[in-house]
Amino acid sequence: MAFRTFKFNLLKHNSRRLTSMTSVQAEKAPKSKLQFALKTPKGTKDWADKDTVIRDGIFSSLSSIFKRHGAIALDTPVFELRDILAGKYGEDSKLIYNLEDQGGELCSLRYDLTVPFARFVAMNNIQNIKRYHIAKVYRRDQPAMTKGRMREFYQCDFDIAGNYESMIPDAECLSILVEGFTSLGIKDFKIKLNHRKILDGIFQIAGVKDEDVRKISSAVDKLDKSPWDAVKKEMVVDKGQTEATADRIGEYVKLNGSLQEVHAILSQDANVMANEKTKEGLDELATFIKYVEALQIDSYISFDLSLARGLDYYTGIIFEVVTAASAPPKNAEELKKKSKSTEDASEYVGVGSIAAGGRYDNLVNMFAEATGKKSGQIPCVGISFGIERIFSLIKQRAEKDASIRPTATKIFVMAFGGGKDWSGYLPERLQVAKQLWNAGIETEYVYKSKANPRKQFDAADKCGCPLAVILGKEEYLDNKLRVKRLGPEFADDDGELIDAKDLITVVKQKLSEIYGDNADEVTKLFQGL
Amino acid sequence: MAFRTFKFNLLKHNSRRLTSMTSVQAEKAPKSKLQFALKTPKGTKDWADKDTVIRDGIFSSLSSIFKRHGAIALDTPVFELRDILAGKYGEDSKLIYNLEDQGGELCSLRYDLTVPFARFVAMNNIQNIKRYHIAKVYRRDQPAMTKGRMREFYQCDFDIAGNYESMIPDAECLSILVEGFTSLGIKDFKIKLNHRKILDGIFQIAGVKDEDVRKISSAVDKLDKSPWDAVKKEMVVDKGQTEATADRIGEYVKLNGSLQEVHAILSQDANVMANEKTKEGLDELATFIKYVEALQIDSYISFDLSLARGLDYYTGIIFEVVTAASAPPKNAEELKKKSKSTEDASEYVGVGSIAAGGRYDNLVNMFAEATGKKSGQIPCVGISFGIERIFSLIKQRAEKDASIRPTATKIFVMAFGGGKDWSGYLPERLQVAKQLWNAGIETEYVYKSKANPRKQFDAADKCGCPLAVILGKEEYLDNKLRVKRLGPEFADDDGELIDAKDLITVVKQKLSEIYGDNADEVTKLFQGL
Repeated sequence: MAFRTFKFNLLKHNSRRLTSMTSVQAEKAPKSKLQFALKTPKGTKDWADKDTVIRDGIFSSLSSIFKRHGAIALDTPVFELRDILAGKYGEDSKLIYNLEDQGGELCSLRYDLTVPFARFVAMNNIQNIKRYHIAKVYRRDQPAMTKGRMREFYQCDFDIAGNYESMIPDAECLSILVEGFTSLGIKDFKIKLNHRKILDGIFQIAGVKDEDVRKISSAVDKLDKSPWDAVKKEMVVDKGQTEATADRIGEYVKLNGSLQEVHAILSQDANVMANEKTKEGLDELATFIKYVEALQIDSYISFDLSLARGLDYYTGIIFEVVTAASAPPKNAEELKKKSKSTEDASEYVGVGSIAAGGRYDNLVNMFAEATGKKSGQIPCVGISFGIERIFSLIKQRAEKDASIRPTATKIFVMAFGGGKDWSGYLPERLQVAKQLWNAGIETEYVYKSKANPRKQFDAADKCGCPLAVILGKEEYLDNKLRVKRLGPEFADDDGELIDAKDLITVVKQKLSEIYGDNADEVTKLFQGL
Repeated sequence: MAFRTFKFNLLKHNSRRLTSMTSVQAEKAPKSKLQFALKTPKGTKDWADKDTVIRDGIFSSLSSIFKRHGAIALDTPVFELRDILAGKYGEDSKLIYNLEDQGGELCSLRYDLTVPFARFVAMNNIQNIKRYHIAKVYRRDQPAMTKGRMREFYQCDFDIAGNYESMIPDAECLSILVEGFTSLGIKDFKIKLNHRKILDGIFQIAGVKDEDVRKISSAVDKLDKSPWDAVKKEMVVDKGQTEATADRIGEYVKLNGSLQEVHAILSQDANVMANEKTKEGLDELATFIKYVEALQIDSYISFDLSLARGLDYYTGIIFEVVTAASAPPKNAEELKKKSKSTEDASEYVGVGSIAAGGRYDNLVNMFAEATGKKSGQIPCVGISFGIERIFSLIKQRAEKDASIRPTATKIFVMAFGGGKDWSGYLPERLQVAKQLWNAGIETEYVYKSKANPRKQFDAADKCGCPLAVILGKEEYLDNKLRVKRLGPEFADDDGELIDAKDLITVVKQKLSEIYGDNADEVTKLFQGL
């Protein structure tokens, strides 16, 4: 019956003319129309059970840090007017998902949270704001699911907009990165940092023409995955630079080390000091070093001249956070050759960067000017945590840990003691559960009027909850309830018989004995306890 | 400069051939191409500041109730394969947003959270589950923004799936509705309830043909907005029923009152008791009444035979929650005639129902069978809170209340006492802020190396934070800090000079004096305190 109805509705959807045909006619419709894959779209997934608990723990940990730094929460629509996204993502614009033209405005799904933020600031003439935003973004990319590279994935962004003194908001953003990863128990991370002005200046020094800068920049950006020879070849063969230019770029982009070291090396380079852009970038970094030293986070930062970042809108410092798991495995190339499937590249890639960001001083202004508003420049700097990638790192820890439960249930209400003809006390169990719910206590019971004791204990075990409240057939008539610890170590314990009127007091007392002041399971997981 | 770059990128996006043209050529491009509206798409909005704080308070209050009832959190992709949504929404299918066909699978934005839930259950062969899901859904409907009717809007769903004894999960869902609204301080609500089997049986009794049932049902559903005469006319003139049939329907659908009363009236009707469907529905409701009485929620429920609900998939009880604000204003028709704009109908409509739901026993099975799986029937019942509408009710309360702040900032770190040549202690302020952040305390400071006292106090006032930590030029050199209450009533108070090493202890003490064990501002708002 359900099958027939469904088929009927499906056909009705496909063609409105079929609406009035009988279900006998519907039966004759070709069967192939009804068969479709029961799956989520490619590159997307459902979040459920323990995964959601861990993910929500990550969100809560990071958002409490953002709030700690004075941020408001912002939430923008999942799609924007298509014009808003146009021209912001360079070569990656082809990865934007468009909504079908069904009449009305042309829209596209957001590609990141930065452009919607800049749109919000420009649209509302905001002069300064700190905001965070945790939401999904959309890219029609080749997914690598097990490594956390998805087409629909979460970003978790914090940004500071406003005309402030140089490098203070930038240093605070880096501090938030360090606080964020530390709070999640991720300690072996490194922040690779560079400055767009320094990079652009170096390209000038090496003889790259202005109009070639962005494409040479994107070649340099591949140095974390490809050897120098391959990148040099791309510059010379594909992107029309001379050998000499490529070699001069090579000298610089191989430089990396502590902020202080690399700053000192560059400051002794006469070409660098003679170039206006490089000089300006170095001066800004000198100020920046002073602040990150005060914040005691300089040891996490590696000044890496090969970092370029693909997006068009960056104008100042740029950075990426990497861990050991970010790099591809050593035998990646081999695995790649063996692999027959190009669908899931997860076998031979690392998780990539687990956070990234930078300064983008012109983006808000672009919106303001393109729409005829005069807002003046609103400089911005921000960070984005890659939640899926961070999740996949933490998940590995959680897999060894059975203590994280998908539900929060604390009490299972049971009834037993009667024979076959006994009612099973279902309305009575409901009354007891209702009292516990009203007291804010997570409570379940078996959805059956007559359930045998075994089935009730099994259900309680399955959800892993620590306490049972039992309505005994005779005891309940005397206004008594039984409170009993659950779990194999309490199998022989009959629990405690209490007055029904004391239920909430006793249960709260027992729960505080069980949980005490201990951190919850997810916090323990983050702390590696 | 920024303008030119932006224009260039925009054109590059529009046509890849333009990539290499010079910026001078770009200048000559028609100006109209660059002008676009700086807005969110029609029917969507940004959430920010106090609104987000209140909304997150609603989410947190409702999700803690869902967890209290043993639910896991589920999160599904924002788009589904188009086939998954097909044939589920009757006449409303035309409101579904499609993604553009950019190669690969055809997808559409979700229309509700129920169909993705059923897809998840069928896809994973789940036999029973309780889950909640708070997320945005998408409908290409005519928006009425100020009343909370949007094209992108939040739903907040709780559902129970599994083969359980009749009416127990149904009664628990109704209990959650009552707990949910009570926790938000919404007390004047009414749950209108009906049963699809009773409604379908009544249509049979009145002489409606089986194939006409859904369209007559959708006519009846309009009784909350239209008078009986108009609905009757629709049945007779547009939908081909006889006068006699319409009048017999009219006798029944005008019935409403308490569950117990209406149940008694119907039980004395010979035609009703002789009809298989109506009889079955009434038997189920007798059981249901027993459980809602045990849960003490029967007084919130009104048995209303005119409630029909538009969606195809309901099979058992159906319900909607309404408040005084749900109905259109008395002079709605007048306003409608006066209004020139059809864009925003908010002037002459009520907010409508603020929650709704029902039982849908065949939906999971439809998926399982249409994809060749054999799962057997997985009956479901669920509720959906209309967050935007609930928000607009609570917002009215909040507008009188200035105590809700968009940020959580507790401490403002300041420095003063030096003259023009003094450094301003910026790195020192950073060090102090860092200590507070590490202790989990929300802290801000002015992003300026030399800020005068007035500007620092103004910034602290603006964010409404209650405490300042002050680095005095001389005091700081003696390892002393000054902790001072903020706000007009403390204008003459110089605060307390403390040892720098005691900072965290003192600040925590002062914050607990200020906030005590009081509920936070949002909870107070819900409680109407």
